[in-house]
Amino acid sequence: MLEPPVRPIEWCDDHVRIIDQRVLPKVETHLDLTTPEQMADAIRGMALRGAPLIGIAAAMGVALEARRSAGEDLHGFRDRIAKAVALLRSTRPTASNLFWALDRMQAALEGGSPVESTVVLTDRLVAEALSIYEEDLEMGFTMGKIGVDLISQGDSILTHCNAGGLATSGFGTALAPVYVAARNGIDLRVFADETRPLLQGARLTAWELARSGIDVTVICDSAAHLLISRGRVDIVFVGADRITLSGDFANKVGTCGIAASANARGIPFYVVAPSSTIDFKMERGCDIPIEERDASEVTHVLGVRITPDGVSAYNPAFDVTPAELVSGFITEKGLIEPPFDQNIAAIGPGRPQIR
Amino acid sequence: MLEPPVRPIEWCDDHVRIIDQRVLPKVETHLDLTTPEQMADAIRGMALRGAPLIGIAAAMGVALEARRSAGEDLHGFRDRIAKAVALLRSTRPTASNLFWALDRMQAALEGGSPVESTVVLTDRLVAEALSIYEEDLEMGFTMGKIGVDLISQGDSILTHCNAGGLATSGFGTALAPVYVAARNGIDLRVFADETRPLLQGARLTAWELARSGIDVTVICDSAAHLLISRGRVDIVFVGADRITLSGDFANKVGTCGIAASANARGIPFYVVAPSSTIDFKMERGCDIPIEERDASEVTHVLGVRITPDGVSAYNPAFDVTPAELVSGFITEKGLIEPPFDQNIAAIGPGRPQIR
Repeated sequence: MLEPPVRPIEWCDDHVRIIDQRVLPKVETHLDLTTPEQMADAIRGMALRGAPLIGIAAAMGVALEARRSAGEDLHGFRDRIAKAVALLRSTRPTASNLFWALDRMQAALEGGSPVESTVVLTDRLVAEALSIYEEDLEMGFTMGKIGVDLISQGDSILTHCNAGGLATSGFGTALAPVYVAARNGIDLRVFADETRPLLQGARLTAWELARSGIDVTVICDSAAHLLISRGRVDIVFVGADRITLSGDFANKVGTCGIAASANARGIPFYVVAPSSTIDFKMERGCDIPIEERDASEVTHVLGVRITPDGVSAYNPAFDVTPAELVSGFITEKGLIEPPFDQNIAAIGPGRPQIR
Repeated sequence: MLEPPVRPIEWCDDHVRIIDQRVLPKVETHLDLTTPEQMADAIRGMALRGAPLIGIAAAMGVALEARRSAGEDLHGFRDRIAKAVALLRSTRPTASNLFWALDRMQAALEGGSPVESTVVLTDRLVAEALSIYEEDLEMGFTMGKIGVDLISQGDSILTHCNAGGLATSGFGTALAPVYVAARNGIDLRVFADETRPLLQGARLTAWELARSGIDVTVICDSAAHLLISRGRVDIVFVGADRITLSGDFANKVGTCGIAASANARGIPFYVVAPSSTIDFKMERGCDIPIEERDASEVTHVLGVRITPDGVSAYNPAFDVTPAELVSGFITEKGLIEPPFDQNIAAIGPGRPQIR
């Protein structure tokens, strides 16, 4: 099996071990979860985050229930699994990978003969959860191998937010090319935007790159434009939350400004995301709803209030970057280059893979 | 005398009362300073900040020394004043207004007859300090009156950092048009970038606007581009630390990215600064040195560490915005519009005022 740079989640047969991301980067603490209830609490309480990782965690939560209930009669077993699925489904309302992973677990349960033993069903559910995990590892590594061809010796790479190992099974999306490059002996440097309001860059990206021995420098989000305009960035890699058929895409707020700066200076700007991030039913970025999150994320930093009492704040979580600012999309199915309005649809459901 | 929206400093004859900006916005506390030593500590310790305000404070510190030493013989009086000037000069190495104000105080002492009484000299020094203060008030109000013509009923104004009353005698630079507009009954809304790393927008701009009853909303610096691109900003006002003859100017890091976004969307972008901010000896922005400040400002927020131990940070304090992104410069001498390479030099030393 592939050895990822970081292991935010591990299946340990009778429990699941996760890194508690709430206390990073101060301390690296693991939580051992033995029940789907504990897993639901961990997801809801954001002990782990990142859409791909949430999906994996939910699937493993169902597998934990199967292990616990393997001694039940078949009816009781199916009933308990259904309850665990419902519980895990309620943890985060918007993470599409969560529903996708739980649907896969449900399908694994429902396939096969209706009179299979709970032992066989348990084995099948555990295997499905591990498949989801391993497929994600494989996809991350594949995207890393595609992206590494874009990196040259000595490059300075800029990234925003945490689209790293901690958001996935371990390789990340935007950081996957960085990890593969480092393994290939390419000398590089990463500038990590701190990514206000929740500081995923300062806290998580910096932490996971530093522990892999990769040279990382944190900057305030405002300093990205200066770095780009002074020629100190060679290439930009970011993740994506939703990619439309036109190539317009949504990602953490701040991404669009970086894309504009990179474009103005002629710096390549790549989006790294599994093909499941593409919304094949949505044409253009203006149709993507922008989630507005609680103002307290802006008015407070790590629990400390920074604004005067009573002053309001506006907290859009995402922005939309227009396709014309994007150099390419790196997916596990290959590198998608312009014209995006043709080439994105070409990898849609039922279409052949590119290169 | 003009009534400013905020009084960060007041001359009270036997003492100087200042707002302690270190504890804003949590509490509004005043410090009563009676000696130049206390004033030097306040400047060095950043109980007050902002180049114009530092100049005023230093001048008042010298006036405090004159009050204290008025009973000395003439030689002892001059000696004590010289020591106070030297002490205050050493407080902040880069604030040009500090040296300019102390030079004015020195000139006030040295002018006149060499055998004047210490009482006459004291009156002259106090009067000079008050002149520096009142001229700054007048300049702020004048810039506000010029800028207000650019604001329409219902406008949303974006600003960055704190170029407000708290950085000056009370009207501010970038915020002066906002205050004058509010006094004129113009309905407006201000979006204040929080301005990492030191959060002058979230802490100071939000505080002073809110206490004047002006509708202010704090945003993360990363959200400015989204607001501008979605048409939610009508005009941008920022301050400046140095303006060159070409119109390229330096201001708090993050300014240039905002200017680029505003320009791309056709949103007017104005710089508000007294003419003393213009460096008539410097041609272009690429010659402006960018001060790099301590990494701890990035790695910590209000004393709380946000990055992993050992991870480095890069902390450029300013960036340079090219002239072509600027709609105009509002100075106390008038509005300077393009072509800047002709119109900025036209208000230089010995040139007639414009309009």
